[in-house]
This record gives sequence, structure tokens and C-alpha cells, in this order.
Amino acid sequence: MTLVVQKYGGTSVADLGRIRRVAARVKRHIEAGERVCVVVSAMAGTTNQLVDWVTSLDPAHYDPAEYDQVVSSGEQVTIGLLAVALQTIGVPARSYLGWQAGIHTDAGHGQARIRRIDPVPLRRCLEEGRVPVVAGFQGLGPDGRVTTLGRGGSDTSAVALAAALGADRCDIFTDVDGVYTSDPRIVSRARKLERVTYEEMLEMASVGAKVLQTRSVALAMRHKVRLQVLSSFEDLPGTLVVDEDEVVESQIVSGIAYSRDEAKLSIVRVRDRPGVAAAIFGPLAEANINVDMIVQSVSRDGLHTNMTFTVSRADLPRARAILEGLREAVGFERVDADDDVVKVSVIGVGMQRHAGVAHRMFSTLAEKGINIQAISTSEIKISVLIAEEYAELALRALHTAYGLDRV
Amino acid sequence: MTLVVQKYGGTSVADLGRIRRVAARVKRHIEAGERVCVVVSAMAGTTNQLVDWVTSLDPAHYDPAEYDQVVSSGEQVTIGLLAVALQTIGVPARSYLGWQAGIHTDAGHGQARIRRIDPVPLRRCLEEGRVPVVAGFQGLGPDGRVTTLGRGGSDTSAVALAAALGADRCDIFTDVDGVYTSDPRIVSRARKLERVTYEEMLEMASVGAKVLQTRSVALAMRHKVRLQVLSSFEDLPGTLVVDEDEVVESQIVSGIAYSRDEAKLSIVRVRDRPGVAAAIFGPLAEANINVDMIVQSVSRDGLHTNMTFTVSRADLPRARAILEGLREAVGFERVDADDDVVKVSVIGVGMQRHAGVAHRMFSTLAEKGINIQAISTSEIKISVLIAEEYAELALRALHTAYGLDRV
Repeated sequence: MTLVVQKYGGTSVADLGRIRRVAARVKRHIEAGERVCVVVSAMAGTTNQLVDWVTSLDPAHYDPAEYDQVVSSGEQVTIGLLAVALQTIGVPARSYLGWQAGIHTDAGHGQARIRRIDPVPLRRCLEEGRVPVVAGFQGLGPDGRVTTLGRGGSDTSAVALAAALGADRCDIFTDVDGVYTSDPRIVSRARKLERVTYEEMLEMASVGAKVLQTRSVALAMRHKVRLQVLSSFEDLPGTLVVDEDEVVESQIVSGIAYSRDEAKLSIVRVRDRPGVAAAIFGPLAEANINVDMIVQSVSRDGLHTNMTFTVSRADLPRARAILEGLREAVGFERVDADDDVVKVSVIGVGMQRHAGVAHRMFSTLAEKGINIQAISTSEIKISVLIAEEYAELALRALHTAYGLDRV
Repeated sequence: MTLVVQKYGGTSVADLGRIRRVAARVKRHIEAGERVCVVVSAMAGTTNQLVDWVTSLDPAHYDPAEYDQVVSSGEQVTIGLLAVALQTIGVPARSYLGWQAGIHTDAGHGQARIRRIDPVPLRRCLEEGRVPVVAGFQGLGPDGRVTTLGRGGSDTSAVALAAALGADRCDIFTDVDGVYTSDPRIVSRARKLERVTYEEMLEMASVGAKVLQTRSVALAMRHKVRLQVLSSFEDLPGTLVVDEDEVVESQIVSGIAYSRDEAKLSIVRVRDRPGVAAAIFGPLAEANINVDMIVQSVSRDGLHTNMTFTVSRADLPRARAILEGLREAVGFERVDADDDVVKVSVIGVGMQRHAGVAHRMFSTLAEKGINIQAISTSEIKISVLIAEEYAELALRALHTAYGLDRV
């Protein structure tokens, strides 16, 4: 018998009517002969309210263990309500808090990592013919205190439970109906993908297509859990996230993603000498600022260099201040900052086996007169930094150029 | 060092401002050299909202274990927030859910009884110089599921913890500042009592002065926990509920209480024969209807009797229907019902050693022209049933007659 872990996010359980609809959907799967284990988030808005209360009491130094105690109460409400809603329509069900479901984490309150899951309680529940309804986002720390897994952690809970229970599939119900070749709000011809590989999904998530939390995809990849992203408001198949060998006839490029959370910093006329990169990037790393897309160009005199790189927009003011403080020690003329930039990425496992993918990207952008400010690549991704005003034009042009348009 | 368990109800932690005020009060006690263990309820209104959600999903047959899972989340929020509020003002604190505090109950979901408390976790917390903040109203059932103790159960949690920890006192902070000689809204000259005995408190609670949950007073009496009722909004001593031998110079009468939750039923012209009382009260007991203040009067012919007794107002329609169904089998003329009645009670441990207490009650009511419809007595209480319209007059007259008026 097929065993499926189903995860419903906050918008899917936002009120009693939606909780009833989730119960009805679970019932349909049971009646179709599947065994189901459900993972739920808190009602939409609840977690924000709880976080607000904690941070209002102590904005700076609140105890993360107490934060977890407060914030984890949201899922406790929805598991109980969904269990009742299931029982009401004749589906035997039982709710489980993280600690009751045997979800053991490390002590990293607020962003704990799952260490191990004792599958016995949930297996017994399933064997008794009941639907376990498990609180996502939470677990039990080594000292017997409640932990939470960080924002979006319910996806991770669902994947980890699917791995521990040896489930055939982990369905993530959300407010979008799948993974698209590009953002449908911008690219009207974007298509829903039937399948996408873990690696592609990871790259898409890392450049802003936030359908699934990166951590949950990485976990699914490690444990080979077949993931499906689908809408909790419609009854249609979504997008399967699977291993590369399950993707028959993979396209060279699966999607065009973008991220507006980018800011560019240029350090102009740095004295070029050994150790200069370390002198610049060391202090940024110490301040926990992530640096991406580094470009170094040598100036005409051969003695100086320009260094350009990107950081997330939120980090821009801090990064700039740190760099200004280094001017004397490192020796450079000035720091230029620009946050009117966007990163556009072409993603596809197929590009490992095909030449010319980068060339097509560059020539397509050139044809539209779009200047490329920086480039970075991975095995399955090419990213370029361009002026933000060209974002939509670039996305649509690339979507067409790679043959992704819906017919 | 004095150890005090402090319990704060829902109105005392209704918002962040009040939670901060509770934290400040705990800090004052710590600075005065006391060790404090805190028990809190959910924010006022939260529990009702949670109960509403469960009963909306399934009004009749909801699973009480799931009810407990949902409803117990309210206290989880307040313990975490209060712990943070304490830490913010420099008081080391840690929150404990029922299961983390070692509170073990039976499996009676929705109205569980505390079976035992493992005092080790809270003792260790206290020894480390921290304030344990414990979720009231909840515990851990024998099957590892969360239980709740029923409405007002946080008082019971506090008293049980005080007993388990061997606390010197259990302070119940509430929205009234103590126990009064009578209801101050009716008797303007009512005085706050400095001390009252457990027995008196129990009688007062049972006739409607709902300052403390009856169960918590009975538990305090059994374990000799010194209870104090006081206001969370003022910084004044409240009323101590203690053993009889701690009440020096006890007054004969400590208070005049009343209950409007009364309805009178009279069965007129019952054929008087052995077993008739059992035939009437058996079916009522089976229907879980509590009968109080039974009066039997023999009719002139000596063959028939009238039976009068009281039930709670909510039970009146059911009780009446059951009695009507017995007419043939038992043999009586008719059933009269009257819910315009009120029970007024004079309470005091001193009356065990003083004659004339009842006489003063009857003569005071007679002077005011108030007819007594039924009488019941216990060792420390005399109750009369009168027409509801005389309730205020009777309370004030008795309050004066027993010398309770504030000077």
C-alpha cells in the first residue's frame, strides 16, 4: 500500500473551513487506497503574532528556548483541530506534537536540525489504520525542551518523516500549484513543470523561487524522498521533484529564475598585491555577510585592480561601512554601491551535457541591449547580474530563447 | 528561605503590559528574599477561542484527547512570554509545560486529576536560582498524551505544585483582592477577611462565591497548603485560607454567601409508602442531576406527603421531565417548579461551638417578613431558600445581624 506524507502550510489551514477541506482531501486519498501521514503548519498569521509578542518583550536578547516554547504552540492548535475534523468525517486520526512523534533535534533553538526520528509511534498509529497528524516545524531538544526548525521548517519536518517512515512520496501542499519554468507573474507563457531534479530545485530556491525551503530539498535529495509540490486549493497533479535518472528526456534548461535580493559593491583602484582579497573578504565573512558573484578586473596601469561583488540587499549598509573602514589598511580609491541590480539565472541539469547554453544566454541579452555586470556559474546554472529595470525583459527573452514558452 | 508558589489567572496575563507587570511583581518577591515558582493560565479569552474552534468542528462527539491538545496550547504561550519578561528584567527564569514539570494525571481528558508530581525538575530549577514558570491547567496522561484539568484547573495545578514542592504558601493572584464577608456588589459594608478556614472557603465556593475553584481548596486542605487570595493589580495582602487552628479568635460567622443557581421542585400529594424517596431520587441521580435541600411534609390525611427539593437552574427542565414521567409509577398529583428562588447561607467554623446562630438567622429573616421555603445545614453552614426578590435585603440584614459590617 502506498504511504504518502502530506504537508499542508499555513494558508491551507488558515481557518476552520480550510481545515475541513484538508480533512476531505486526506479522506479522498485514504479512499483511493493510500496510507497518509499528515504534517501541518500553524494557521497563517499565528506564527508572526507569536514571534511579535516575544520580540516586543525583548527585541534583542530573548532566550531562544523560550521563543521556541511560545512559537511552537501554533502547530499544536492545528494538529488537534485537523484530527477532530478528520474524525468528524469518519477518518480515525490522532495528533502528535514533535516530542510525541519522536522527532529529536539538536539544541539549536530557533533553527534546530533534526538529528533522528524514532518511527515507532507513527508506524504503530498507521498500522492501527489511523492518520497521524504531526506538528511540523518542531522537535525535542537533547535537554527535553521544545525546539523549532526555523522558518519554513514544516517542509523539512515532512521530508524527514517521509524518510524515517520510508514513504513512497512526500506531497507539499501550498498556495501555488507547482514549480514553473519561470515566475508566471512576469512570464505569462511560463509552464508548470511535471518533473524537476533535486539539483535544479535547489538552484531555483537559492535564486529566489521560494516554493520549497532549500533545506527540505537538500534533505529529500540526501534520502531520495520523492517530493511533490501541489496546490491545496485545486485537485491537480503538481510538480514532482525527483532524482536525475527519473527525469526522462530532460530539457537542457528547466527554468529561468531571478532574485531581486541583490546589491553590487565595487571597490575602485585597489592596490594589487598578494593577500588583498583576504583583507577585504575576511572582515565581511566575520560579520556574517555572504559574498557572491566576485569579479576582479585589472586597471590599465597594471598596479591597481577593481573588485566587484554582490551581497544581499539587507547586508548592503553594513558591508559598505565595513569596507569604508578598510580604506586605509587595504588602500583603495572608493567604494561604489548599487542596489538597482537583479540576478537572472538559467538552470538545468541538461546543460552539463550540452555546449552553447552560456553562449545563448549572453547573445540573447546582447540582442536586447542588456549589459551584463557580473557572471557566476555552477554545473547546472548560469547567473548574470543586470540592471533591475531589465529584469522582466531578460526573463521573457531567455524563456523564449530556451524554448520554454507554453504553446 | 521562604518558597512561594504564585498563580496568575488569565486576566493577570491578558496582554504584554500585564505580563510585564506580573514579572515586576515576581521580581519584588525575589528581592524580598523569597524563592518563587510561578503558575500561569492562558491569556484571557484564548481558552474560549480554542474551545470554540473544537466545538465548531464537532459540537457533539469531539475527541477529548484532541480537545486537550488544542486547548492546552494557550498556557504554552504565556509561560514562554513570562519567562522572557522575567529574563528581560534580570530574573533568571525557565518555562515548563505540564509534561516538562513532571505533572502526571489520569486519562480523564478534559477533566483530568493529578496523580503525582515528580518534583525533581522544578526543585533543580529553583536550586539553580531560577524561577520556574509552569503551565497551569495541564498535565501528562498515562499514555503520553497531554491532558487538561477542567475549567479553573490552574488553581489546582498551583496548589498541587505547592504541596509537591513543600512550599510555604500558595498565592492565587486574581481580579479580586480577597475573600469578603459577603458580595461587596450587594453588601456595601462587606469587609475583606484576613483569614478564613479551608472549610469555610469550601462552603463559600459551593454556594456561589467563586473566588477559588472548590477542587483546589479541597486539595489545599488535604495537604495543608496555606493559600492566599490576592489582587494582581494592587500590592496589598489578600485573604489567607488556612487550617482552623491558625485562625485565632475566630468569629462565629465569617460570611454570608448566596447562590442564584437554584430551582425548586415540589411534588404534590405523593402517596406515602416505603421506597417512595428512592423511586423519585434514583432516576434523577442516574441522569446526573444533583439534588439539594430536601424537605418532606406530611399532608393532613396522613396518607400523602409533599416533597420539595432544589436542583441547579440548568437542570430544571430535565429534572421536571423525568419527574413527569414518574407520575404513574410513583403516584402523585402534580409537579410544581419555581426558579425565582435563591439560597442564602451563613457560614462560620465558630458556629460549631456557639448556640443560637440558626435562631438569629430565622428571626432576622422573620423581622423583614421573608418567608423561608427550605432549610439545610452542615456543621459550619446554615442555608435557607427564599424568594429571589428578597436576596439583597436578606444578605444585608444578616450581614448586620452577625456583626460583620465594616465600621
